[in-house]
Amino acid sequence: MQETPISDLEVAEEMADAARAAILPFFRQSNLETSNKLADGFDPVTVADRNAEKAMRAVLARHRPDDGIFGEEFGQVQGSSGRTWVLDPIDGTRGFISGTPTWGVLIALSNQGGPFLGVIDQPYIGERFVGSADVALATGPTGTMQLKTRTTSSLGKAVLFTTFPEVGTPEERAGFEGVAQHVQLTRYGMDCYAYALLAAGQVDLVIEAGLNAYDVQAPIAVIEAAGGIVTDWQGGPAHEGGRVLAAANADLHAAALALLRNY
Amino acid sequence: MQETPISDLEVAEEMADAARAAILPFFRQSNLETSNKLADGFDPVTVADRNAEKAMRAVLARHRPDDGIFGEEFGQVQGSSGRTWVLDPIDGTRGFISGTPTWGVLIALSNQGGPFLGVIDQPYIGERFVGSADVALATGPTGTMQLKTRTTSSLGKAVLFTTFPEVGTPEERAGFEGVAQHVQLTRYGMDCYAYALLAAGQVDLVIEAGLNAYDVQAPIAVIEAAGGIVTDWQGGPAHEGGRVLAAANADLHAAALALLRNY
Repeated sequence: MQETPISDLEVAEEMADAARAAILPFFRQSNLETSNKLADGFDPVTVADRNAEKAMRAVLARHRPDDGIFGEEFGQVQGSSGRTWVLDPIDGTRGFISGTPTWGVLIALSNQGGPFLGVIDQPYIGERFVGSADVALATGPTGTMQLKTRTTSSLGKAVLFTTFPEVGTPEERAGFEGVAQHVQLTRYGMDCYAYALLAAGQVDLVIEAGLNAYDVQAPIAVIEAAGGIVTDWQGGPAHEGGRVLAAANADLHAAALALLRNY
Repeated sequence: MQETPISDLEVAEEMADAARAAILPFFRQSNLETSNKLADGFDPVTVADRNAEKAMRAVLARHRPDDGIFGEEFGQVQGSSGRTWVLDPIDGTRGFISGTPTWGVLIALSNQGGPFLGVIDQPYIGERFVGSADVALATGPTGTMQLKTRTTSSLGKAVLFTTFPEVGTPEERAGFEGVAQHVQLTRYGMDCYAYALLAAGQVDLVIEAGLNAYDVQAPIAVIEAAGGIVTDWQGGPAHEGGRVLAAANADLHAAALALLRNY
């Protein structure tokens, strides 16, 4: 009997479910004296991180053995399909250890052109943002909604999110400030959740620096599926990481890029 | 037939339930063109704010008609009991309009000595932090847990939260930076949720300025119930607002206060 083929999106969701189950038992446990260092010498966030990536790799071994894998914790596995799953089991570990609900599990599927499917999952809230060629959806405590980026066309009306002042060099910080001084509102410290909010039409810009490929590939796929644009600070591809500009639409992207190009 | 008397905590929880129901329909609706300005000329957050405070005042009219009320939206109502309910229907409106899940409904009950019962409610996550003389509990997506602040005793191991750089004067910012340079980790932008995390034993310090009484009274009651300490930057009462230092324990409070006193 042949099994029904499972779609890439179904594989990604099964991975996100597995990561949730692996991580949640360790969330907000750092106040228990006994678990500050676990038996194996690691702290809870490290154990959660590794367990989640192992759980996601097990799903891939079952359903997509020919695909490559690039994960934050266990590195690169070469595949034969030309496709790579890019995984960050806990994006925003500083948020995780502080108990905030804005860290996330990041899953992307990419080929040579970059990521074309992405999942941003927030296990504690029970919220998932999914983007691909066919789908742009958020599912959470209040139901399911279509992801669609905003039409805000001027910086003066834009809401900007960032992880600055925590990340980046002084020069990069200056680049960020150059845009921040023109926007209506700047907010800080939301980790990958900021990209999810951009895809959901809640904010207009995210500007960051010092990112890794696994930090940004899932956000790129989700935001592009929702109608947004993600590039580096020169307008080129951002999926290898580094400096990232995510914008709700082309006008806003052009306005921010004109300021960031100088850095 | 006489009704069973309802406790203060039950009244507060009924108010929080009413506020949730009033607010949630307006959360993350700002991307809908039609609701940027509603029929009455207000934006969604303003309508949600007002509706929630009205709903909470209706609960008080029913159960506690002799108590005073001080709310952000509709001001002061003098009572005859010597007790006042202090209400902020949406604390963190900038977070609310950005779609983040870290704004909250704040409810405190106070007498001349300050707040002695508090609720911090996050409607979207479905999470509630409650503190009084008898109770210190959080209820959320993963169940119910006891609130208990951390035992971290040195600044060098402490996690600090703040709404700086968004709030405060340059002098106040300098005071904050004076502490921030000594801690292990500083995180930004969590609104009232930072106080909830302190009560839940996830973070060690919250330092802010420019607060109103209704911003801080519920956090004070919840944190004190969990074993923490909240004062102004001189070590005096903080329940009238202004500059606030919240600490997980006495040692940490003393260490931060020694640095903040100069400002």
